[in-house]
Amino acid sequence: MHTTTSTTITSATTSAATGTEPAPTPAELGIGARITLSVMSSDYVRIITEALAVTSTDGLVVETDPVSTRVAGTEQRIAEYLADLVAAASRSGEHVSAAVMLSRGCPGEVTCDLPADQPFPARQTVALPQTGVRAVAQWALYPLADQPLAGSTVPDHMRDIYAAIERARAAGTVVGSDHYVTRLAGDVADVLTTVVDAWVTVGQSVRHVTTHVTISVNSPSEAAR
Amino acid sequence: MHTTTSTTITSATTSAATGTEPAPTPAELGIGARITLSVMSSDYVRIITEALAVTSTDGLVVETDPVSTRVAGTEQRIAEYLADLVAAASRSGEHVSAAVMLSRGCPGEVTCDLPADQPFPARQTVALPQTGVRAVAQWALYPLADQPLAGSTVPDHMRDIYAAIERARAAGTVVGSDHYVTRLAGDVADVLTTVVDAWVTVGQSVRHVTTHVTISVNSPSEAAR
Repeated sequence: MHTTTSTTITSATTSAATGTEPAPTPAELGIGARITLSVMSSDYVRIITEALAVTSTDGLVVETDPVSTRVAGTEQRIAEYLADLVAAASRSGEHVSAAVMLSRGCPGEVTCDLPADQPFPARQTVALPQTGVRAVAQWALYPLADQPLAGSTVPDHMRDIYAAIERARAAGTVVGSDHYVTRLAGDVADVLTTVVDAWVTVGQSVRHVTTHVTISVNSPSEAAR
Repeated sequence: MHTTTSTTITSATTSAATGTEPAPTPAELGIGARITLSVMSSDYVRIITEALAVTSTDGLVVETDPVSTRVAGTEQRIAEYLADLVAAASRSGEHVSAAVMLSRGCPGEVTCDLPADQPFPARQTVALPQTGVRAVAQWALYPLADQPLAGSTVPDHMRDIYAAIERARAAGTVVGSDHYVTRLAGDVADVLTTVVDAWVTVGQSVRHVTTHVTISVNSPSEAAR
């Protein structure tokens, strides 16, 4: 279903528009994230509440439930929100762990409005300012293609995953690979840029793509290495 | 590559063997999990250390790194380990969050030894004793099929996901759906049984399947609802 209902989220995908049909908005493309932010401190409620308070939600839909916070909007704003939130909580000095998922397409049970007959929007790389907060992370990328699209190649999710890892390696954030995940390290901004860019890039040729990253900051076991 | 190297993990898939060729072991099938256990307490090191100490690792390969703990073995032992670990940490009374991923097939960059010409092992449902610890969770399932297998249907990852959710609904742990995830609630054992059984079931027809669940226990926001 392709609705033309306007949303509060403006589209940054105008360059992909063909003819007079407006390009799909992030909401129509089912673009969003979830983050579960954990702070290993008995003062965690204050630290998380204050981190949420200083993180801008401009242009975003943000909903918090008992398990996670959902963020919807453009890829750039989602990436900024995640980096700002993780960095803000980490500046407490406490050990912070963030479980992040990003999704585009029609994931889960909530139907999104991805039009079947429109081209994919142009690639939108994200650009994030350094946070000064160093993180280690474990990252997995899931291209969920069932069928070749018209004019596209045969689906091969491992090909897409390996290509994304090679791009991430060139970006300098990849520090190794392990069972089921790629290990990343660097400024929180660089780790999230790697993850979001890979997800966006695979999204150019695969309609439904998710990615999960677990980010760790101020870990005593990391400090001991 | 199908190695015949013996491992310390015994195969529980003998019923799937055809002829004299032994059924693939869990290690050969790339079966394993990662868990990032977060305890929202300044006493988290002691609580996590003690939870790890009381959780049996019999028959499992367990490796802890700065971001997560990897667990490999049979599905049953992996499920037991995850339930026991989350329950043990939760009995501290502190707010606990666990980011869990399960993978089977050839995920990430570490090549597994999934033979291309063997049947899938018979379905192994898991059975877990009640823990007495109630959890809420958000769950996502990722069947990563590129091509139809011989004698199988055309890949359709959303069909497989919806079927898994229907089975979970019948099990009584599904409490709702939201963007990108299915919401689960119940005893930690029942939540993990739902997640592991769905992952195993889809694994009967799809070679590479991952699933992610974020489990929350003793959440003050949940208690306030």
